[in-house]
Amino acid sequence: MKPTIPKGTRDFLPAQVRKRKYIFDIIESVFKKYGYAPIETPTMESLTTLSGKYGEEGDQLLFKVLNNGDFLAKADQQLLNEKASKKIVSSISKRGLRYDLTVPFARYVVMHQNDIQLPFKRYQIQPVWRADRPQKGRYQEFYQCDVDVVGSNSLMYEAELVNILDEVYTALKINVKIHINNRKILSGIADVAGVQDKFMDMTTSIDKLDKIGEEGVVTELSKRGINRVAADKIMSCLKITQLDELATVFKDSEIGLKGIEELRSFHNYFDTSPNQNEVVFDITLARGLSYYTGCIFEVKAKDAVMGSMSGGGRYDDLTSTFGLKDVSGVGISFGAERIFDVMEELNLFPEETAEDIKLIFVAFDQESHQFAFKAACQLRAADIACDIYPAPLKIKKQMKYVNARKIPYAAIVGSEEAASGKVSLKNMETGDQQSVTISELISQFS
Amino acid sequence: MKPTIPKGTRDFLPAQVRKRKYIFDIIESVFKKYGYAPIETPTMESLTTLSGKYGEEGDQLLFKVLNNGDFLAKADQQLLNEKASKKIVSSISKRGLRYDLTVPFARYVVMHQNDIQLPFKRYQIQPVWRADRPQKGRYQEFYQCDVDVVGSNSLMYEAELVNILDEVYTALKINVKIHINNRKILSGIADVAGVQDKFMDMTTSIDKLDKIGEEGVVTELSKRGINRVAADKIMSCLKITQLDELATVFKDSEIGLKGIEELRSFHNYFDTSPNQNEVVFDITLARGLSYYTGCIFEVKAKDAVMGSMSGGGRYDDLTSTFGLKDVSGVGISFGAERIFDVMEELNLFPEETAEDIKLIFVAFDQESHQFAFKAACQLRAADIACDIYPAPLKIKKQMKYVNARKIPYAAIVGSEEAASGKVSLKNMETGDQQSVTISELISQFS
Repeated sequence: MKPTIPKGTRDFLPAQVRKRKYIFDIIESVFKKYGYAPIETPTMESLTTLSGKYGEEGDQLLFKVLNNGDFLAKADQQLLNEKASKKIVSSISKRGLRYDLTVPFARYVVMHQNDIQLPFKRYQIQPVWRADRPQKGRYQEFYQCDVDVVGSNSLMYEAELVNILDEVYTALKINVKIHINNRKILSGIADVAGVQDKFMDMTTSIDKLDKIGEEGVVTELSKRGINRVAADKIMSCLKITQLDELATVFKDSEIGLKGIEELRSFHNYFDTSPNQNEVVFDITLARGLSYYTGCIFEVKAKDAVMGSMSGGGRYDDLTSTFGLKDVSGVGISFGAERIFDVMEELNLFPEETAEDIKLIFVAFDQESHQFAFKAACQLRAADIACDIYPAPLKIKKQMKYVNARKIPYAAIVGSEEAASGKVSLKNMETGDQQSVTISELISQFS
Repeated sequence: MKPTIPKGTRDFLPAQVRKRKYIFDIIESVFKKYGYAPIETPTMESLTTLSGKYGEEGDQLLFKVLNNGDFLAKADQQLLNEKASKKIVSSISKRGLRYDLTVPFARYVVMHQNDIQLPFKRYQIQPVWRADRPQKGRYQEFYQCDVDVVGSNSLMYEAELVNILDEVYTALKINVKIHINNRKILSGIADVAGVQDKFMDMTTSIDKLDKIGEEGVVTELSKRGINRVAADKIMSCLKITQLDELATVFKDSEIGLKGIEELRSFHNYFDTSPNQNEVVFDITLARGLSYYTGCIFEVKAKDAVMGSMSGGGRYDDLTSTFGLKDVSGVGISFGAERIFDVMEELNLFPEETAEDIKLIFVAFDQESHQFAFKAACQLRAADIACDIYPAPLKIKKQMKYVNARKIPYAAIVGSEEAASGKVSLKNMETGDQQSVTISELISQFS
């Protein structure tokens, strides 16, 4: 039997794990610096928690876990006869795999409202699962890194989150452009164009601007029943880059003006911060079919062709579906897989992520091997990471292993060295060799 | 709708996540120091990989994931009519959740044999899932921390792993006793008692010694068809504590003598190491229904009532089920949940795991709040973790929040402070307050 893993899932080799950890560590350290606290939620959630939260397509993409034991016992025979897969699901499966980190977070806030303090600032770095058709760069299991605050409508948090975006990408050395808009401004545009009843159609169309261009959006709007006059108004609004100009256009749209006010409050905080990446007001930013109600964010790499690497925004009513009303929240999500791909493309991973150890012992004979093992113990006791080849085989074979693992130094021990308490330290790159004592070895690698 | 999570699963609050991370970080840092490399495998494995690897009971405890789409389409109608849950599974589910880290590792070694170097030293810290009946201390989702080396039969690795056990528990400040035995010695006992054909019955019975005592084991042996004479021989062997004495008893058992030789080789390496915890030869250690073939290990806490916290051993033929023969391996596993429980019981977590930030800004009015936000930005730019209350509400309300989050210092800003570029730094424990500049704040918290 030749082993395989399910389509769309991945094994990670050590070098990949180290690189991924490098990304997660940077993201996590920034989250912590801004006072966000870590939480974790279970891999499996009740299907009652997940179903209906991600639209019909999302429901199709949920991985459902079969009930244990005699799962067919209570299934309806009629539905089984009809092979009614969709209708039978709820009777044979009551758990599903986490689809994102937002819905579990909303559930968490409601369940633990007595254990947490509002405003509650949390981060969560965990995998999610979606039964999407696997393709290049799209996996069925992938990590999300989310940071959200709930229980406050202060625009200060929007500024803080943009600072976080900036700081993370600066630390990762990825040049990005941070796009900002506000769903209330899009709502103002819908007011101006008289298509408030088709708000989602409008935002979904605008969301495609990058991919299909202006003409494409106009066609899309028309397809969705928005007439040419309205479409033209929408398109002319999308050309505005100044809030003052927009305020004139929005003079009769209360919600549009509120959106401008929110962006200005954001800027009052934000202007003061030491950002390194470009932050732009982008009226065309729409964030498609999302539940956002206020500011929205999106991050794009400047030096690589890649979709949005981070996105987020404010949602006024995240937890009401679980019975807790009036809890406003705002958050952003980092797409670890896309960040990884961009960093590989731009060669941004530091050398040090390649191997944890710098030194390995190799020995000529059994006695030297015992000496070398003892030396390795001494180094480890001094907190120096090192390794030792497991047996005194032919040196050539051992050296081949050292090279294959790309370990930079080998400490070679023969009977002469062992007798004098020394090792012959070989620089694997230059080939230089020198005789050193164990204490010299310890000082050199400390 | 009142939200819930599935039985046997858990949400983790920030303090719990931090404590768990404290454990994982220590374990991981020791693994790295000994030259082990991290790998990760997917949450879902093909059921063909998992099934039949954990015995019949294990197969029952596997979580199976329903195929996506019209999963009933190809199911046998006859089996559906019979509601034959067990027989229908393979046609409606082809993936299962990871049940342990050992089988996926064996699969990984075979699939990636061209990408890795033998001996391959790997560690893996990931959750596993088992549909066990939930009870105190037993969950359906829990973490394992495994460290294994495959591709070498050097007894040096047994010594190295005992060093790792010792170093991890020393770092965690848990006093433990490390028990060591060898399955070949148990096999020697089976030779001496003439019950080699009932080896698994014998080891499974011995494994219960702790729980049911000597008489219980004798009864258990008899139930399993081992006669009184043989049982007496077994029990008298189990009283032997010296390898020399055992060698006399084993004089006609080749495998028993081999077991003694292996333990002696282990000691040749091991004697040289700087261990802090007690390491004992324990002939009664059996490791039940496991696949081990050589040395076996188990770790018990000395100051807390808790079963085995770590266990492991050598297995001669891990990967052959996936088509790769003659790859010997040895490894140990740390039970994160039990370690957590023992550390809670003995109060071993350091204070610092409680909160990531030491300082929060609170402001009297809007202008001071802007000043405070700017100050927070400056501190964060100087790599100091801090927070700020989101709005200039009543100070009493803000201070209540600071206390609830147990943040040790509050930097209070009013119009006077803001005007002079200072804050009033309050020690939340003592109540002491002093006026300091932002740069003084930066030096104090750096």
